Amino acid sequence: MAGRALILFAHGARAESWKAPFERLRGLAQARMPDVQVSLAFLELMEPRLPAEVARLAQQGVADITVVPVFLGQGGHVLRDLPLIADELRAAYPGMVIKVVGAVGEDPDVLNAMTDYCVAAAKS
Amino acid sequence: MAGRALILFAHGARAESWKAPFERLRGLAQARMPDVQVSLAFLELMEPRLPAEVARLAQQGVADITVVPVFLGQGGHVLRDLPLIADELRAAYPGMVIKVVGAVGEDPDVLNAMTDYCVAAAKS
Repeated sequence: MAGRALILFAHGARAESWKAPFERLRGLAQARMPDVQVSLAFLELMEPRLPAEVARLAQQGVADITVVPVFLGQGGHVLRDLPLIADELRAAYPGMVIKVVGAVGEDPDVLNAMTDYCVAAAKS
Repeated sequence: MAGRALILFAHGARAESWKAPFERLRGLAQARMPDVQVSLAFLELMEPRLPAEVARLAQQGVADITVVPVFLGQGGHVLRDLPLIADELRAAYPGMVIKVVGAVGEDPDVLNAMTDYCVAAAKS
């Protein structure tokens, strides 16, 4: 399938249970965008890693990939590791557009939803 | 001040920039609940750690603390490390109620806000 893809890029963890909200997020985003392939990729500890996922999409002829860092804070993983990986992937797949956006935790609406959750928790 | 407190418990990171959305979340929650002390505490790499923050609140006479794990996934840190720390704190401060709720990333409204962000990123 030629076309577009969205990769939800997360840290990864040893506990398989950790992945659950990321899989729910993937399903919710996929349901909203049936014409975009939505998949997960991880920095470490879980598969697939980001380069393997981009390679898989490239084999399918995907030419336009958006990477959303599903991280709360923008630390070394988002500010240093991810740009390096993205640059390597752009060099390896010169015909592909690979766009990396800001971390989800920096989004005001996400912060507002987290605020609502915290306030409700404190009052319960 | 006797009363209640809300601790936003996050992982911590080496990069100081990582903390920014957690500080914004703290400010937003504090603004919504002027009668509750809202503070940050970390598992590692940043200060204060959770035990130090609970000790500080105990000295002020706070008797009721809610801990919100500001994590996306519930892995070892949320499922294993945090309950152990909380149990130690409950033993150390028997007069204090320490409630730990689920991770913010498990909340449906937070997931929906993240979905909106991902969909907008893919379409931009």
